[in-house]
Amino acid sequence: MSLVVVGSMALDSIETPSGKVEEALGGSATYFSVAANLYHEVNLVGVVGEDFPQEHIDFLRSRGIGLAGLERASGRTFRWVGRYAYDLNMAETLQTQLNVFATFHPQLPPEYRNCDYVFLANIDPELQLEVLRQVRSPKLVALDSMNYWIRHKRDALTEALSAVDIVLMNQAEVRQYVGTLSLVRAAREILALGPQALVVKRGEYGASLFTPGDCFFSPAYPCEEVRDPTGAGDSFAGGFMGYLARAGELTEGAMRCAVVHGSIIASFTVEDFSLNRLKEITWEEIEGRYQDFRRFTRFEGKDV
Amino acid sequence: MSLVVVGSMALDSIETPSGKVEEALGGSATYFSVAANLYHEVNLVGVVGEDFPQEHIDFLRSRGIGLAGLERASGRTFRWVGRYAYDLNMAETLQTQLNVFATFHPQLPPEYRNCDYVFLANIDPELQLEVLRQVRSPKLVALDSMNYWIRHKRDALTEALSAVDIVLMNQAEVRQYVGTLSLVRAAREILALGPQALVVKRGEYGASLFTPGDCFFSPAYPCEEVRDPTGAGDSFAGGFMGYLARAGELTEGAMRCAVVHGSIIASFTVEDFSLNRLKEITWEEIEGRYQDFRRFTRFEGKDV
Repeated sequence: MSLVVVGSMALDSIETPSGKVEEALGGSATYFSVAANLYHEVNLVGVVGEDFPQEHIDFLRSRGIGLAGLERASGRTFRWVGRYAYDLNMAETLQTQLNVFATFHPQLPPEYRNCDYVFLANIDPELQLEVLRQVRSPKLVALDSMNYWIRHKRDALTEALSAVDIVLMNQAEVRQYVGTLSLVRAAREILALGPQALVVKRGEYGASLFTPGDCFFSPAYPCEEVRDPTGAGDSFAGGFMGYLARAGELTEGAMRCAVVHGSIIASFTVEDFSLNRLKEITWEEIEGRYQDFRRFTRFEGKDV
Repeated sequence: MSLVVVGSMALDSIETPSGKVEEALGGSATYFSVAANLYHEVNLVGVVGEDFPQEHIDFLRSRGIGLAGLERASGRTFRWVGRYAYDLNMAETLQTQLNVFATFHPQLPPEYRNCDYVFLANIDPELQLEVLRQVRSPKLVALDSMNYWIRHKRDALTEALSAVDIVLMNQAEVRQYVGTLSLVRAAREILALGPQALVVKRGEYGASLFTPGDCFFSPAYPCEEVRDPTGAGDSFAGGFMGYLARAGELTEGAMRCAVVHGSIIASFTVEDFSLNRLKEITWEEIEGRYQDFRRFTRFEGKDV
């Protein structure tokens, strides 16, 4: 029942209307694994440079996150410098220093190759395909992607989309990939490639789940303040996959709850910079927001 | 139990990526009353010019919409010319010809002054206050507004917001009025003025209802294609108020269902230009989408 994530480890420098941080812990695999680890054991496959602070490694290890697939390469760690203005749905990238990530080819340790759950975070779809060739017969593979790969590696991305069970993407990217304004039509075309489900991430508006012939909408949790949206999507994916691995079933019902749990985890992530809030979540808080989500979405009409 | 709407009657010329129409029937009071009339009898207070086509009057009358408060003034009817690009959430106004609407002062016929339900569509808040002085003791008054009045008639708008029971506004306008990015905080401040509920319209993302200490989120119906978003907000309001008048209660539960019915009606409106689709809605279709909304929002988790 093991869960493996392959993605980036980064040092992020971020400015938002609420403040800023320099070289804070970040990266898709980092956010994902800390989030998923709340629900289920998780193994991280990624790369850091020689300059990656030992305290972050110690933190991940203290959580019980499997680090056998974490490579320390010579050179500097991947860095991202970004800024958000008042539209917190939109990051402005000021700098991307790939560093050791530029030549990263994920190698799964032999003991990970029989894993049941795989999350391919947003990396080059050619690398996502490399990972797929290394796993034997996972129960569930999900992937995330982004506009850059839609534009520059469309064929590899299509191959990857066709090979996985669940696709997670932003709403704008779903529309961009298919080339239509109609989300319904875009979802149908992506599902036609093979995945059994498409999760559309909609930032402050929540997330939706499209399966053949059905759909589900979850709002985002109404946070009092959003300080830094970085990592929201990756920690959403962590909550989503972690919940599914824990539930051990892939029914429509389980996927719907997984979307809600993804939304819950993302709602904590954005309340502070880096993984600051995510690190502190308790089970009581998750349970509290789960009950809130039920209350926020319930309606019961008398017939009219 | 009568329901009165005060708002605009217009001839709209609209272009969207799906096509265009010239001088088609439009206006907030028009969309509202045709929508609300699906649920409850409704009386329209507004003004048209000498050039307003008789066929539109005949259509409204054929629906049983009360027209005792419809004034025909000398001059031309209000006209709006607008365009939507691929972001259908954002109208670009090319021309506004107020014409007879410029000097409109709504006069409620004596028999409307005892009405129970009043909807003040998006007009000058000073006119909204004039209407409020003409009604005796309505059970429920709701209003809509827009960015223009927030900027140019802020004090009158604040007075109007303080005098009504329910406020309906777009998300951006809610934030703009309060001057905060936090929707939660903005809702709290608007409710502190006096209204018992705030309905936040979020376009393709649905709508949310804020009441003191609680909130509710409804998605938008996933339409296969949106041809023209004009009138979505006003027909939402019509479905919302029409449902409440029919239900005859103002509980949290009734308001939640009213938000869902508003969303259903808006989802039909946007499927075609002008009131073309709205005119054809059947009860079976409303009931069908209501069941869809229940299916699209239901989740039932096993405890984790």
